Amino acid sequence: MTTQTHRTWLLSSRPTGEPTLENFEQVEREVPTPGAHEVLIEGRYYSVDPYMRDRISPEDSYAGSWNPGEPMRGGVVGEIVESNHPEYEVGDIVKGLLEWAEYCLSDGTTLERVDPELAPISTALGVLGPTGRTAYFGLLDVGEPRPGETVLVSGAAGAVGSIVGQIARLNGCRVVGIAGSDEKIAWLTDDLGFDAGINYKTTDDIHAAVGAACPDGVDVYFDNVGGEITDAAFAHLNTGSRVAVCGQIALYNDAEMPDGPRKLWKLLETQSQVRGFLLPEFEGRYDEATERLAEWVDSGAIEYTETVTDGFDNLPTAFAGLFEGTNIGKQLVRVTDAE
Amino acid sequence: MTTQTHRTWLLSSRPTGEPTLENFEQVEREVPTPGAHEVLIEGRYYSVDPYMRDRISPEDSYAGSWNPGEPMRGGVVGEIVESNHPEYEVGDIVKGLLEWAEYCLSDGTTLERVDPELAPISTALGVLGPTGRTAYFGLLDVGEPRPGETVLVSGAAGAVGSIVGQIARLNGCRVVGIAGSDEKIAWLTDDLGFDAGINYKTTDDIHAAVGAACPDGVDVYFDNVGGEITDAAFAHLNTGSRVAVCGQIALYNDAEMPDGPRKLWKLLETQSQVRGFLLPEFEGRYDEATERLAEWVDSGAIEYTETVTDGFDNLPTAFAGLFEGTNIGKQLVRVTDAE
Repeated sequence: MTTQTHRTWLLSSRPTGEPTLENFEQVEREVPTPGAHEVLIEGRYYSVDPYMRDRISPEDSYAGSWNPGEPMRGGVVGEIVESNHPEYEVGDIVKGLLEWAEYCLSDGTTLERVDPELAPISTALGVLGPTGRTAYFGLLDVGEPRPGETVLVSGAAGAVGSIVGQIARLNGCRVVGIAGSDEKIAWLTDDLGFDAGINYKTTDDIHAAVGAACPDGVDVYFDNVGGEITDAAFAHLNTGSRVAVCGQIALYNDAEMPDGPRKLWKLLETQSQVRGFLLPEFEGRYDEATERLAEWVDSGAIEYTETVTDGFDNLPTAFAGLFEGTNIGKQLVRVTDAE
Repeated sequence: MTTQTHRTWLLSSRPTGEPTLENFEQVEREVPTPGAHEVLIEGRYYSVDPYMRDRISPEDSYAGSWNPGEPMRGGVVGEIVESNHPEYEVGDIVKGLLEWAEYCLSDGTTLERVDPELAPISTALGVLGPTGRTAYFGLLDVGEPRPGETVLVSGAAGAVGSIVGQIARLNGCRVVGIAGSDEKIAWLTDDLGFDAGINYKTTDDIHAAVGAACPDGVDVYFDNVGGEITDAAFAHLNTGSRVAVCGQIALYNDAEMPDGPRKLWKLLETQSQVRGFLLPEFEGRYDEATERLAEWVDSGAIEYTETVTDGFDNLPTAFAGLFEGTNIGKQLVRVTDAE
């Protein structure tokens, strides 16, 4: 195997605005050989996520910037094919923050073991992994929903938003989702149990639409998008409401932060709270989230959906598609043995 | 006394922009006679506060709008001159939310007893009253300052801001105040123990000035003003910082909410929190605040300053002056027996 070559996707240039295929370059490299205490992992599923857009911005990224010429990275689930590490054997399934490469080396630092008996291994990148955990902590710890309250979720058909709404429903809340197609809205209301949905792309007046869908106002707003959708949500905040800021996908592609309506007055008027959060804040409680999410998935209380794109060559396409809203639920790229 | 007449200030019209004397009308009325369970109070000190600007706006006021033709209202400290109420005697000093009138009736509902032995009775409207309590809960409960952190206060020379900074100093924080004159800045740094001050009126670049005065960034921002000063403060928020929104005086006089830089991205980037609050949230804990504030004032740990305007006729002038920044510390109007 060590004389084989394999494919790797590099960041070739930083996008201005939405990422395009031109920002990525595929190279053929020799498959690396694991050293002492290292394993070689063959990738099965690759996660593409909105936050990556920020990591390839030039500067001021909250999580540290990635540079042109370097491999793209992300969450990967794969199988160990060579091991010099005492804790891993060939055939083990693991998850880690790895390169967009067919084969990746690891010394075990970012690896977590994946149990193929528990659920399909792809869920380790989604509902039982970072996106599920983000939904869990962001809604329950930052949003603090109480039974009977109205929870409004933007980006509701995305990997995080679709789980947020279902956890809110399990907590006895009225759940309203905002998404960008009638197909997505139907999925939210018919399959996931959302009480109402708003297709922001076909709505003339998002402000009025939020008001109509939330006749008792908004108690918890889970924000994945920012921008004008969020402006509309703020206009309907109730007294004592909580806003959990998880993502601002509407703004990731802007070179300069645009202006928008000032919001602090509304927070004062309603005695409300806004908090931005990132998953690593809750690192010490990942197991709690995974256990509860696994129970909910197992019992059918929570449904999850994956949009799976096949083929390693399609990684940049799947990533760019996130910003066009082509995915429902978690967007993954699958690489099969046969490929 | 019941055949006497007395002066009352009515709201005559709603201001557009800053309030002016034309928005108020003085009328001469018969002094009312207390009924059963009522007292008649002769006013000594009248409180004028920025929040009143919002109460005389046409609509959407968070505390309920006051109407033209009605008397203006506010915090008043006065002496009971007639009593049909079993709990109050002639000569008692009380505080309440009363009319801008020389004599006010009350059934006791909004009254609190004021102890003239504890401190000058005017402090019941300031450091030992609503403004002191607002500073206490807003800083400690909303801002949650920790020793060694940097606390930035806008409107720092105002009634609330000047107390906020001193409580922050007592909690071991580095305290930076923003105010609108060199005289105010000198008072903050020389008399109240603020570590640094920024005169926003003489600063070319408020953004750079905040950066220079807060070299380690801002951990707690106590916001009394909103607008561009607040934009500059947000740019320097540290990871995990807290913003307490107490007032937005820069915006009270705007007919429509102006746009400004979007801020949720910064909250996400820094995992920070913003909360708007109003004093009544903490109603069950007023005694706690008053007791601690009284100890601090008594021991000299906290200094307070009042800007006292003499004469009932000057109530509208003193109120309008708040928006020109003429006051240092708590703005009061005093009416003496001799008047």
